Amino acid sequence: MTFTQKLRDVQLHQKSLLCIGLDVDADKIPQHLQSSANPVLEFNRQIIEATHDLVCAYKPNLAFYEAMGERGLTTLRETLKIIPKSVLTIGDGKRGDIGNTAERYAKSLFDDFGFDSVTVNPYMGFDSVEPFLKNSAKGVFLLALTSNPGSKDFQRLKINGKPLYEKVVRTAKKWNTNQNIGLVVGATHPRELKMIRKIVPEMPLLIPGIGKQGGDLVSAVKDGCTKDGTCAIISASRSILYASSGKDFAEAARAEAKRMVQEMGTYRNSI
Amino acid sequence: MTFTQKLRDVQLHQKSLLCIGLDVDADKIPQHLQSSANPVLEFNRQIIEATHDLVCAYKPNLAFYEAMGERGLTTLRETLKIIPKSVLTIGDGKRGDIGNTAERYAKSLFDDFGFDSVTVNPYMGFDSVEPFLKNSAKGVFLLALTSNPGSKDFQRLKINGKPLYEKVVRTAKKWNTNQNIGLVVGATHPRELKMIRKIVPEMPLLIPGIGKQGGDLVSAVKDGCTKDGTCAIISASRSILYASSGKDFAEAARAEAKRMVQEMGTYRNSI
Repeated sequence: MTFTQKLRDVQLHQKSLLCIGLDVDADKIPQHLQSSANPVLEFNRQIIEATHDLVCAYKPNLAFYEAMGERGLTTLRETLKIIPKSVLTIGDGKRGDIGNTAERYAKSLFDDFGFDSVTVNPYMGFDSVEPFLKNSAKGVFLLALTSNPGSKDFQRLKINGKPLYEKVVRTAKKWNTNQNIGLVVGATHPRELKMIRKIVPEMPLLIPGIGKQGGDLVSAVKDGCTKDGTCAIISASRSILYASSGKDFAEAARAEAKRMVQEMGTYRNSI
Repeated sequence: MTFTQKLRDVQLHQKSLLCIGLDVDADKIPQHLQSSANPVLEFNRQIIEATHDLVCAYKPNLAFYEAMGERGLTTLRETLKIIPKSVLTIGDGKRGDIGNTAERYAKSLFDDFGFDSVTVNPYMGFDSVEPFLKNSAKGVFLLALTSNPGSKDFQRLKINGKPLYEKVVRTAKKWNTNQNIGLVVGATHPRELKMIRKIVPEMPLLIPGIGKQGGDLVSAVKDGCTKDGTCAIISASRSILYASSGKDFAEAARAEAKRMVQEMGTYRNSI
């Protein structure tokens, strides 16, 4: 089964487009967890236990784990073991390097850590992306139009009248012979999201930027989904993880995730 | 002292433009080291001991260490401790992510591992680069025109008649208020290297692609250096690391490094 099919199945089964970004900051973890053997792992465990029936995916941001050194990698590995098989994992590392190096990253993220999918930076071109594409069951989200202010610096530059990110979208479509490519498109760009969905009517779109970054949930759902109401992965991190800083943090995270799923349901085309 | 000044001083002191890429592959390490407690670390130690007077920098490729998991990070950390302070270190990870994430990567690479400089992917724009630039003593090499075949896919696309990589070069020049930005330009593109050096007459250029990838050493030196014969960092990995697969590997690495330094000297403008 290709990654795209797998994503569709998971979203239909879970009845959810929501992805929780596990961008866990040791400093923001509730006070009462600080005394546990591994506060970040304990935090992740409780977040996952409280929300796994409400999401289609979890997306650990590798930087947050690498910032904790060797212990961070172990925490990431243990976190991945807690995530139920019914839910997908996205290794958000935005890697990108020449072929022989990209192979190492793919091996580490897919084989060693066991991620179902990863984010990849397209700037270095095909041979930097290819090693991630070989296994059609594993997904690759190429950065197209990212949610941050800096997306205007290069991604929006015009090439023959069309922006660079559109060239990335059209190129990704050409490279997608294994049906395992998706695109990262920030919810902070609703008009462009709609246009991108027209170019790739069936491709998974990973849509960050909801919540803290001010992205638009309504358009993310309405314009991000394919015709069957799937393949948009709406990602939120801080608004869910830190919904409460008290002992009720997991409960509060669940309430916020549930609120988002319900709000998304309202705008969904079908299912 | 800014990173650019530091690089110039190191290159003048060491009388070398050579950087050895520590892209160490556990499978390619000589047989007789396989029984040591940590073969990659022992390999690195002997390579560094045999070559440190011949180089201006070492460039560990993070993918090769991450592929070994937690143990790989420890190996990287121990390797960095072996490198003498007279030589610079470049953390080659090509990271790039939104501001709050880029901060984590910068903290990990500069503060935790202690790298003198890093490579960064520019695709996500200013807020993804800024956290790496804050400390003027630490260097940031932005990917401009990379050495691999895929560099043609996006980097060479024309924006108002000028290629994207040139836009990256001119933007980097604008961002360089702390005098700590450099650019990655593959030795496989000699004409473009010459043109880029004209646009940024004083900026450090990290030039990979010599050796296995077929880059041109003569033009890398002649066209990559600033007027004082510095600021080109010519990087080679496999041709030095695996110059011999026998017990004489470190000696053979030294011989190959020495040969390159001598060949480079011939083409150097001054010093």
